[in-house]
Amino acid sequence: MALPIRFVLVDTSHPGNIGAVARAMKNMGLDELVLVKPKEFPHPEATARASGADDVLARARVVETLAEGIAGCGLVYATTAREREQYLRVVGAREGGERMVAECRAGAGAVAVLFGTERFGLSNEHLLSAHAVLRIPANPEYESLNVAMAAQLIAYEIRMAALADAPPMAPVRETPLATSEDIERFYVHLEQVMTDANFRDRTQSGTNLMGRIRRMFQRAELDANEVNILRGILTAVQNQRRRAGQG
Amino acid sequence: MALPIRFVLVDTSHPGNIGAVARAMKNMGLDELVLVKPKEFPHPEATARASGADDVLARARVVETLAEGIAGCGLVYATTAREREQYLRVVGAREGGERMVAECRAGAGAVAVLFGTERFGLSNEHLLSAHAVLRIPANPEYESLNVAMAAQLIAYEIRMAALADAPPMAPVRETPLATSEDIERFYVHLEQVMTDANFRDRTQSGTNLMGRIRRMFQRAELDANEVNILRGILTAVQNQRRRAGQG
Repeated sequence: MALPIRFVLVDTSHPGNIGAVARAMKNMGLDELVLVKPKEFPHPEATARASGADDVLARARVVETLAEGIAGCGLVYATTAREREQYLRVVGAREGGERMVAECRAGAGAVAVLFGTERFGLSNEHLLSAHAVLRIPANPEYESLNVAMAAQLIAYEIRMAALADAPPMAPVRETPLATSEDIERFYVHLEQVMTDANFRDRTQSGTNLMGRIRRMFQRAELDANEVNILRGILTAVQNQRRRAGQG
Repeated sequence: MALPIRFVLVDTSHPGNIGAVARAMKNMGLDELVLVKPKEFPHPEATARASGADDVLARARVVETLAEGIAGCGLVYATTAREREQYLRVVGAREGGERMVAECRAGAGAVAVLFGTERFGLSNEHLLSAHAVLRIPANPEYESLNVAMAAQLIAYEIRMAALADAPPMAPVRETPLATSEDIERFYVHLEQVMTDANFRDRTQSGTNLMGRIRRMFQRAELDANEVNILRGILTAVQNQRRRAGQG
């Protein structure tokens, strides 16, 4: 189930941005969108940009005032790129994401993130409804995140925080990792072929060559099939040598 | 100064997306954009969507092949939403961002992140040039990040890592990562030795053997010395064969 975190878009001018925010939210598992006085909504461009997140759009609540938009919310964050003179606490997006998830888990009620207009952001009056400002640490020489990009980054941080206790991602693997015994047999086999070929390392005289070779294969985390392929190549090389020697 | 991390867009169809990626990059302080066979570029829509990041667009390099696009790079990450059967290491965007920054700080040369087409992502062949797959942990029930959103999130993680003072976690490496060109030459050499030895894969009839072999070496993230050692072994095996054949 999605977390009770709503994104509140205030006075949005371009319906396409509303759709793009819906898409950004759904990508990260969020689904509560609130629109305060959108200039045009519903609108075909919103639907087009939502690209499959039309369920989030269909469920979006349209309200007249910010107060209605954040009714029932505990924690409220504002997003703004502009530096303000007003003293509001500024929280990085990462820390904010963690805090929002922690609030939800603590059963502290709904949380809201406010996004202002494309041109002017949130007004000072709107900011007064927020507990703190969420800050995305962008390039100070070029800070031009549109509302959908900002929503995407904040939704991502919320998801990362929500997943924090989740098990780590395992690589997609067809076959199990090779056992250490199989790998050892491969190294012995490889060393035999190297010796047969009178291989001498010219790059690093005096270093532990087999150690270097092992490290490089260990990093590859070979699976069972891969060890079989490698040993097959070694065997083919040995057979060829025997045939050539006899021929 | 921007980090030497390049975003490589492969076969991008919509010029608007190229502009949006340039904007996403610049927002996070990145400026090296490479376009492999873009369908249309330059294009007014790219410029429009770049929205002030036109310097990144103007400097974008257009090339014909992925190999040119990643020339000179050490670490190469691919982005993909699709689950693949191929076994490549999967790295979360956050961990990947930290790793890329650590590589840059360690002076390990340029780093590349590959982005595929809007409809199909990266081909399996393209994936073979990558060391690992960068994964954005999106909602599994709706994973629909467009290329600009994905670029935005990855650029953000790079920036977050760059802003952190955390000690670098690059692996201890005596020598720089092998360039993609060196690695390609190694694969050609290896395939030649396999052909000479009439190696046939008995484990997986009908599968793409060189693809499997590449994936396993790509995972190992070979450095320049290691590639030299491997090629030295191949040369020794070839010399031995010639001697035996003559003997």
